[in-house]
Amino acid sequence: MTNATRPPTARDEAGLLAAVTRYERALMADDLAVLDELFAPGPATLRAEGTGVLVGSDHIAAFRATRGGAPARWPRRVHVRWTGPHDAYVVAESDREHGAGVQTQWWRRHEDGGGDGDGDGWRVHAAHVSGGPVGAAPVDPGAADDPATWRVRGTPLAAGADSGPLRGVRVAVKDLVAVAGHRVGGGVPAWLEQAPVEEAHAPALQRLLDAGAEVAGIAQTDELAFSLTGVNEHSGTPVNPRAPGRVPGGSSSGSAAAVAAGTADLGLGTDTAGSLRVPGSYCGLYAWRPTHGAVPVEGVLPLAQDFDTVGLLARDGATLRRAGRALLGAADGGDRPEALLRSRTLLELATPETALAVEAALAALAVATGLPVRDVDVPADAPAEWTAAFRTVQAAQAWANHGAFLEADPDAVSPSVAARFRAGAALDDEQRAAAREVVARTRTWLDGLLAQGWLCLPSTSTPAPRREAGPDGFEAARAGTLPLTTLASQCGVPALGLPWGRVGDLPVGLCVLAPRGADADLLALLDGLGPA
Amino acid sequence: MTNATRPPTARDEAGLLAAVTRYERALMADDLAVLDELFAPGPATLRAEGTGVLVGSDHIAAFRATRGGAPARWPRRVHVRWTGPHDAYVVAESDREHGAGVQTQWWRRHEDGGGDGDGDGWRVHAAHVSGGPVGAAPVDPGAADDPATWRVRGTPLAAGADSGPLRGVRVAVKDLVAVAGHRVGGGVPAWLEQAPVEEAHAPALQRLLDAGAEVAGIAQTDELAFSLTGVNEHSGTPVNPRAPGRVPGGSSSGSAAAVAAGTADLGLGTDTAGSLRVPGSYCGLYAWRPTHGAVPVEGVLPLAQDFDTVGLLARDGATLRRAGRALLGAADGGDRPEALLRSRTLLELATPETALAVEAALAALAVATGLPVRDVDVPADAPAEWTAAFRTVQAAQAWANHGAFLEADPDAVSPSVAARFRAGAALDDEQRAAAREVVARTRTWLDGLLAQGWLCLPSTSTPAPRREAGPDGFEAARAGTLPLTTLASQCGVPALGLPWGRVGDLPVGLCVLAPRGADADLLALLDGLGPA
Repeated sequence: MTNATRPPTARDEAGLLAAVTRYERALMADDLAVLDELFAPGPATLRAEGTGVLVGSDHIAAFRATRGGAPARWPRRVHVRWTGPHDAYVVAESDREHGAGVQTQWWRRHEDGGGDGDGDGWRVHAAHVSGGPVGAAPVDPGAADDPATWRVRGTPLAAGADSGPLRGVRVAVKDLVAVAGHRVGGGVPAWLEQAPVEEAHAPALQRLLDAGAEVAGIAQTDELAFSLTGVNEHSGTPVNPRAPGRVPGGSSSGSAAAVAAGTADLGLGTDTAGSLRVPGSYCGLYAWRPTHGAVPVEGVLPLAQDFDTVGLLARDGATLRRAGRALLGAADGGDRPEALLRSRTLLELATPETALAVEAALAALAVATGLPVRDVDVPADAPAEWTAAFRTVQAAQAWANHGAFLEADPDAVSPSVAARFRAGAALDDEQRAAAREVVARTRTWLDGLLAQGWLCLPSTSTPAPRREAGPDGFEAARAGTLPLTTLASQCGVPALGLPWGRVGDLPVGLCVLAPRGADADLLALLDGLGPA
Repeated sequence: MTNATRPPTARDEAGLLAAVTRYERALMADDLAVLDELFAPGPATLRAEGTGVLVGSDHIAAFRATRGGAPARWPRRVHVRWTGPHDAYVVAESDREHGAGVQTQWWRRHEDGGGDGDGDGWRVHAAHVSGGPVGAAPVDPGAADDPATWRVRGTPLAAGADSGPLRGVRVAVKDLVAVAGHRVGGGVPAWLEQAPVEEAHAPALQRLLDAGAEVAGIAQTDELAFSLTGVNEHSGTPVNPRAPGRVPGGSSSGSAAAVAAGTADLGLGTDTAGSLRVPGSYCGLYAWRPTHGAVPVEGVLPLAQDFDTVGLLARDGATLRRAGRALLGAADGGDRPEALLRSRTLLELATPETALAVEAALAALAVATGLPVRDVDVPADAPAEWTAAFRTVQAAQAWANHGAFLEADPDAVSPSVAARFRAGAALDDEQRAAAREVVARTRTWLDGLLAQGWLCLPSTSTPAPRREAGPDGFEAARAGTLPLTTLASQCGVPALGLPWGRVGDLPVGLCVLAPRGADADLLALLDGLGPA
């Protein structure tokens, strides 16, 4: 008996996914010739939906010829289960806001197919289609007016340009980013108290306002951005609108919660060790961490300058792309990689069910883009090594930034966050130098890898932890996720989180890393992936 | 690559269908322990419906534990496609009037299973469920008042007993059966003209009236019952309510059309060579041809006494069973066979798509009853031989019955029917004796076969032919179907037609033959097969 979740060979998988891509494109184009070709000929072929089963390729073709095309669908998860080298069971799932439900297909490769990995020879022998209700994903009703989400709200708090590509887009600004006329609170009351009123917007925010966006408010953050959970002992834990009873993730916690709840359309936040990608994963949002240095960090409270970035969260890919272009001030981009890269080592940093969810999202991305998936080797001990190095450099810089403040007011932040800062105080030059050497080596290695394609990995090792998990549970979640998030952080490469995975009802992100500076290309990946 | 529609071995198929039976029963009983056991454990197991996909057996079990049972469903077709010796793709389909839609399952046999044919070791690795609208099957709107269906209607034409198990059941009486106060028309105007007014109901009809049924009217028949198409040049071709543009089948054509249209609940007709089973198959009705001699044929115009029977048509199995008990005046029955027998030779007498439809219905019957399917050998040349013998004896007796009438009025019936009668005039004693010998041999052979189980075969070789098929098309349909129908006819065994097959939208019957005299057992098969 074969392993039901792994393809017999890479070529088998490439051929199957290429055939699925061809099928989905033909379906959306109502290209009857291709659809008929991809269904196995003969009387035994099956097509089922709730109202009945068509038996025989002739009946299926006749049905297709008269229905005038299928409803639009955008698969977000493609679950592939192999029953043998020539047979696979494929379940493709569209999210509710992206059209009709679920289709199941039994694909078989025929011996007369070319077998050259382009989908030749694969045929559907049985299909089952069912549509669910179309509509927005459910949102926790307690989320809209959650006091733990916002520190300041306005109608708007700051207006943008009268026209532009972001006109009407409401931004939840993380409370690390300067908003003219307001203080930066940093998630710490004692910090807020001593902070000056900002005279100007941070340049990154100004770029969004110049493109027509407006500031809906200043959203809460984890204390000095040094956490990934979204738990803040001072302001409370924002409700995760998409995962009731779970934390929202952080440190861009309030921005994520507000966008997921629909009280903002765009989150402007920061990502040092995953502070956009993690709440994006936990709250079911698109997240973009730019190339280090590609978006100005002036006017933003620093945590660890080697890794700090300013980026975005959005409910849909089109908004993220438009806002990303405004932040970059860059050309369109659109160069595509040769392949999507998958690493078993990285997948296995997530729990088994999270890894399966991310693999399904990755297969959906391969189907949507038509890009092949290629397996790459990551040494099993590398993630632990790069994570430790990152944490060393991060802690040293964080202490350099905020040590004086924390020495003066040791109770300003909670014990677990304080401990992270203090770890930086204890580091000697040799430790810091050794860590920097690992970071440099990791960058070189990843640059080589990304020349082959874009690396796809879980955004987080699990979906959002329960609110009652407590400090030990949150620490475990952070420790599990850092090996996944710190790779992009220390290498300075851009990362795009797609909120396509599901573990039960809980969202979990698929993260795509591109070469340094390829932000416009990475954002262009969002074109054609779903409704604008 | 294996043949996708045949099981690797009989034991593989028996094990799989036993597992499906166990699953369906556990589902209807909401037996969570069995359901959980039958789903493969682990994070990769899938369960899809229109609203989304659950991934992992734990999530599936949790869903099942809280939903409070599944909607009732009664699979009518179970399509099995084998992807390998350990893997099968199963699509089970319920008709709209029998509950929620369609489920697809990928079953895999685990090596730790017993493999002893009782379903051990088979597990669901992926399932997809979708519900369709529940309600009556669609009926051609032109069917209700079709003048070609009825010769006489009343409100009622004859009342039944004030109480009884058939109270309120409206009977469409075939125009071969005596209704007191009316002539028997036999589908031929010249016959009607010379027929006497009947003084009493035929005893078979009287039994139904004594049980509370009433006569809704006298329904059209093919000329002197010597046809299987339902085309009558004098009164027209009744609309087939379930297959627009198609013939209804005959010779109990009007009774079938009336019951399918809902203007009657029960058809009282005759079956010599298939005249109940064929219209039952074409119109999507349950049909019962009794053991020869089990129901009195007095007061019924004969065609060929060696084979003539009086039997029933109904839209649902429960009505058929109640009416059958009234006709038999017999005890309940309920003995079950050891197995359901399937013959590749007999299936291949039907078109490939009809054979697949009947196989799917047979698998559904196996699942519903829990009876195993066993393949039996029928010599390839036997059907042609028994059909020829039957036609010889039938033609001889038909000529003996009606030759004088047709000699006196050669234009009373249409040329094709006249030719069938005339074939009987040309037979010599030797031909008749040789035919009777084949019939006797066939009876002995079938008796031996039916001691092993009940034989399941297509009711007809195709679904209903198009109305415009013309004499050659109708003759071809009759010639294709006679090898299937005349087996029960010449052996005198009871036959039950289940309207479960579908070719495209068209119904086609699965026919079950039981040992001579086992009518009550055969009708008891209808218990537990679906809503009353």
